[in-house]
Amino acid sequence: MLDVPADEAGHLVRVLRLGPGAAVRVFDGRGREWDATLRATSKQGAVVELGVPRASAPEPRVHYTLAVAVLKGDATDDVVRDAVMMGVQAIRPFVSVRAEVRAAALERAHRRERWERVATASAKQCGRAVLPVIHEVADLSAVLASDGDALRLLLVEPGVGGTTAQPRDLAEPRAVSLAIGPEGGWTADEAASAVGAGWQPLRLGGRVLRAEAAPLVALAACQAVWSET
Amino acid sequence: MLDVPADEAGHLVRVLRLGPGAAVRVFDGRGREWDATLRATSKQGAVVELGVPRASAPEPRVHYTLAVAVLKGDATDDVVRDAVMMGVQAIRPFVSVRAEVRAAALERAHRRERWERVATASAKQCGRAVLPVIHEVADLSAVLASDGDALRLLLVEPGVGGTTAQPRDLAEPRAVSLAIGPEGGWTADEAASAVGAGWQPLRLGGRVLRAEAAPLVALAACQAVWSET
Repeated sequence: MLDVPADEAGHLVRVLRLGPGAAVRVFDGRGREWDATLRATSKQGAVVELGVPRASAPEPRVHYTLAVAVLKGDATDDVVRDAVMMGVQAIRPFVSVRAEVRAAALERAHRRERWERVATASAKQCGRAVLPVIHEVADLSAVLASDGDALRLLLVEPGVGGTTAQPRDLAEPRAVSLAIGPEGGWTADEAASAVGAGWQPLRLGGRVLRAEAAPLVALAACQAVWSET
Repeated sequence: MLDVPADEAGHLVRVLRLGPGAAVRVFDGRGREWDATLRATSKQGAVVELGVPRASAPEPRVHYTLAVAVLKGDATDDVVRDAVMMGVQAIRPFVSVRAEVRAAALERAHRRERWERVATASAKQCGRAVLPVIHEVADLSAVLASDGDALRLLLVEPGVGGTTAQPRDLAEPRAVSLAIGPEGGWTADEAASAVGAGWQPLRLGGRVLRAEAAPLVALAACQAVWSET
């Protein structure tokens, strides 16, 4: 028997209105999933009995980290949802010069906890049994210093000068970290700092991508070129 | 001097509150774009004077058609917006067995005209000077009979049996038509009809893609593998 976390118990009991005997699926967020049976429900929670293990969606062979600027309003929720669907292992939200939000305000608003709920819902929808790590909101400088053992790619807008690569120019890495800027793109200083810290400018096609869509396009592009599993 | 279409004139005058002398850009939807100056505005419209031609975003070398199931509510608006951003040349909306909408209802609601406005707004945002053709809503059977000279790919869900290809298994085509189903995927009959009509099942990774996101993922995957320009 296993206690269901309070959020999920509330969803089962109050939203889905399931009672004892209902068939459910349980996943541990680290890759394991089971058929299960709801055994008891109350206002305080729910208890399930685990049945047979299930095969959940395969994880990408390449380890993806998405380092992404926090966007205006709730737009980062959609980025988190899509990143989970694309199989990322970690998300590093950051605030940059052009960000309209501050890390302290995001922390007060418990934004990371909300993203974790969004990630759980997305994992259920896409059949994944792994939840990515969602790091605390950091400054861009901290993000640029991280993931030193991964292939580190900085998405730049079309027409940015200098040498840029596309995913198909790059050998399949063991791990990749993709940095994606805010609405309006990187400042020249930010891009120069990133390149100085070892990040490689990445370009994806000739059109300007919406900030909310860029992570999905970048992840899809990498996965199309490198092995999925 | 050139009259601005009524929709766009209203946007310039009433939303952006621009007056004579303002610098604007004009594009013809077929690949040409100019710097221009607003010369006269009235309640009825606006007149611009064309200046020097501008370089607009490059078009993909591969000709993309997106055949996409009309989704619930306004979700197809987002699909159109993203498809324009990804450089498609044509969009074929269709209704399938599982669709919750009917072609006649969409026509009464002038849905195609709305998608054309969404496409125009997206082209402006992403820097494209080409507007894709948006076909009338058709039945799936009509869509399956179309684009016979293109590489025709049918996006299928992970775990669907039979032979499936990924974009990187396929040589770069001159033109590709991507068919993407509704929420809940294709019925077995629909998938069999498509294969019978010469469409090739395409798979993209191991996780279930949200219906609204699948076109963006599929277009990004193809463009990552084939040449952009």
